[in-house]
Amino acid sequence: MKPKISIIGGTDGLGKWFARYLKNKGFDVIVSGRDIEKGKNVEKELGVKFTNNNIKAAQEGDVVIIAVPINVTERVIKEVAPHVKEGSLLMDITSIKEIPAKTMEKYAKKGVVVIPTHPMFGPSTPSLLRQVVILTPSEEHKKSEWFKKVYNFLKEEGAKVIIIPPDKHDRIMGIVQGLTHYAFISLGATLKELNVDIKESRKFASPIYELMISIIGRIIGQNPYLYADIQMFNPKISEIHETFIDQCQKISEIVKNKDREAFVKIMKEASKHFGSEAKRGAYYSDKAVFALTSEIENLNKLIGKEIAVKNINSNKIHFGILKSIDDDYLTLEKNGNEQKFNILRVDVFSGEELEKLKRKHLKRKHIDISILFKRDVDENIILKLLKDLFDIDIVDIYEGKNIEKGYKSITFRIYGYNKKELKDKEEEFLRIIKNIGGKERFSKIKKLKN
Amino acid sequence: MKPKISIIGGTDGLGKWFARYLKNKGFDVIVSGRDIEKGKNVEKELGVKFTNNNIKAAQEGDVVIIAVPINVTERVIKEVAPHVKEGSLLMDITSIKEIPAKTMEKYAKKGVVVIPTHPMFGPSTPSLLRQVVILTPSEEHKKSEWFKKVYNFLKEEGAKVIIIPPDKHDRIMGIVQGLTHYAFISLGATLKELNVDIKESRKFASPIYELMISIIGRIIGQNPYLYADIQMFNPKISEIHETFIDQCQKISEIVKNKDREAFVKIMKEASKHFGSEAKRGAYYSDKAVFALTSEIENLNKLIGKEIAVKNINSNKIHFGILKSIDDDYLTLEKNGNEQKFNILRVDVFSGEELEKLKRKHLKRKHIDISILFKRDVDENIILKLLKDLFDIDIVDIYEGKNIEKGYKSITFRIYGYNKKELKDKEEEFLRIIKNIGGKERFSKIKKLKN
Repeated sequence: MKPKISIIGGTDGLGKWFARYLKNKGFDVIVSGRDIEKGKNVEKELGVKFTNNNIKAAQEGDVVIIAVPINVTERVIKEVAPHVKEGSLLMDITSIKEIPAKTMEKYAKKGVVVIPTHPMFGPSTPSLLRQVVILTPSEEHKKSEWFKKVYNFLKEEGAKVIIIPPDKHDRIMGIVQGLTHYAFISLGATLKELNVDIKESRKFASPIYELMISIIGRIIGQNPYLYADIQMFNPKISEIHETFIDQCQKISEIVKNKDREAFVKIMKEASKHFGSEAKRGAYYSDKAVFALTSEIENLNKLIGKEIAVKNINSNKIHFGILKSIDDDYLTLEKNGNEQKFNILRVDVFSGEELEKLKRKHLKRKHIDISILFKRDVDENIILKLLKDLFDIDIVDIYEGKNIEKGYKSITFRIYGYNKKELKDKEEEFLRIIKNIGGKERFSKIKKLKN
Repeated sequence: MKPKISIIGGTDGLGKWFARYLKNKGFDVIVSGRDIEKGKNVEKELGVKFTNNNIKAAQEGDVVIIAVPINVTERVIKEVAPHVKEGSLLMDITSIKEIPAKTMEKYAKKGVVVIPTHPMFGPSTPSLLRQVVILTPSEEHKKSEWFKKVYNFLKEEGAKVIIIPPDKHDRIMGIVQGLTHYAFISLGATLKELNVDIKESRKFASPIYELMISIIGRIIGQNPYLYADIQMFNPKISEIHETFIDQCQKISEIVKNKDREAFVKIMKEASKHFGSEAKRGAYYSDKAVFALTSEIENLNKLIGKEIAVKNINSNKIHFGILKSIDDDYLTLEKNGNEQKFNILRVDVFSGEELEKLKRKHLKRKHIDISILFKRDVDENIILKLLKDLFDIDIVDIYEGKNIEKGYKSITFRIYGYNKKELKDKEEEFLRIIKNIGGKERFSKIKKLKN
């Protein structure tokens, strides 16, 4: 039988994400949370069980997952860990690991397996496929059956699993998340303090400044409480902050003293430390920059042509003629109406991709045309030749009564999106047909309202 | 007559770039520099005149452009500016503007027009098209004929021209270049100081950390002397450094005190200052990240298929079967030999683009096949139908002797890259032809050695 899974704080964020994911995988899932109304809604939405009693949820689970915000994780572990059944598995999914690992080990009963976990993704991720999940169990728990089960489950779901001790995790995350957030938030605060007009400054921008501004914008727009906690609950962060401030001060001093050689030495040493990663960085950022500029250049080539515009968030698709591009916006014209779209928020389709989308999303009309061909003609070869020029199928083949001897009637169906287009296609089709040995029998246009 | 242009320091870097560009535009160009051997080579390479006497170059030019490194710009201006002819134009192309502007105004004779200039691009740029060029003339010189000429020239070349006072330029550049370089060099030094294994750290990386690492790698790999000078010669840089260090210290203190609300306030205020630019940043960085991950996903789909790989630097093209992808490398197989390419250093082509490249770069073989069609058949329509399935042309049309009455002979030429491929194509071609009213006359394969 599949284990029963209790998710403490499963009514929100990544906890809710796991509740849905595991429920869909066929597990029996209980979620707990303080807010009864929200809990009832999640119960209905996901088809899981809800309780507002964390301890009860902890008592019932074969697997108990702590999924509360970082700042209350320690308190909630102390509250529920002693109630987890012997033989059960206790996990947390916080972005820091040293504190939760120690607290779970200390407060869980003997016989409870502890696997502190850090899923390196947010609740907008569709599945575990290719996502990084970090596990930081003790040497003892690493040998447990539960660990094997968790590991195998994650691997089967396509996740990239990394196993390291909790303190090493926090040091690396102190860099990967902590230093990154810290530096960009500080940059954002600096630009505010210096009262820099961001939009204006982009006029002068190198692609790298543009990238930096984007990352700052991205980070300062996130949930500030989560970002505060990622800084505040990482025991390694002070050392990292201090080292960064030291380096900033050192370089600032060097610049003040116009000590060129000292400045050059710092850059060279950093570059040496990076080794081949410095070159990789140049290549990688080139690609990122190039991807963005070439998107705009490709768009410019499409002005005056038909395109489809798909909103990245809503997935809604719009068809029309690309009229113009200015700044971050493109203008689409359809039946004389103009609509503006933020280029950064849409995917643009043209050519073959546009045709595919039209077939999928627009109502096609069609015309049927019957053509006489000699009996020994292979209609599949004819169709193959025509497929490149027309959206076309064969809907009927007929020999016998009313058909000249030695001939067969092949009825082609040509699709289009309006009457004018179909008329043009019909003409072109007949012109081709008479050059490849076909004779028109009769044609009729169907569904031609517009 | 076109003005004579003297470029002081025109044997290297952006000075040499302008020498080439202006020479190609038909100007009479003199370059000066200290290194006689280098100068002689540039003279030969670009077809310009060289002198190792800066003063002489300055005396001769109708336009004199100072293009020496930042750290010697002031000294060279003092040396040459007094020798620029009355009625001439004096410019510099340094990344800082306050010091050169003041020095040029002070040392140039009355009657010399001064236009301090900052071209926002490097010598790897192909042309002025879409490049940003900043001009920082005084109000007086802004009214001059020379200014109109320069402005119009840049506009005609497709550059984006920005006109601002030199001190405002230095402040904005202190942000756009100065703060950006400073922050990323400090980050690089920090990662070195903390002895972070960069490659290892990327395993844990979020896309944003990956971007940050790339930008650091890119910046610390540049010419450190140029980067030192950009910091050291900008009069606004101290204030910017200090503000940044203050913000870092303030946030570090807040984190140490676990003052969540203060942290949240800083993020929110920065976000408010960014306004709609915060969201734009999120969108823009999304696109950058997506462009990179989707490139890898698209590559994965091409495994086992024929592709072309073009080296971004050398433009050399390789054809082969994509065997595998690991880390940053792809393996290409050709005639049993395998070759590895850094994915970040190549563009990959498949499908239609691959076909275009093959036609351009590989030696095509061909086969000619003569087919009898009725006289009234339009061979252009037949060719159009076949073009999608074959690399094909019509090379001869013949009626008369030896040809059945009422018929004409159309000779098609089908191209391919080897004998086997051509044989297959011939078979397919004949199968099609007999279904569309054609009769084989004769065929011959040419250039079939392999």
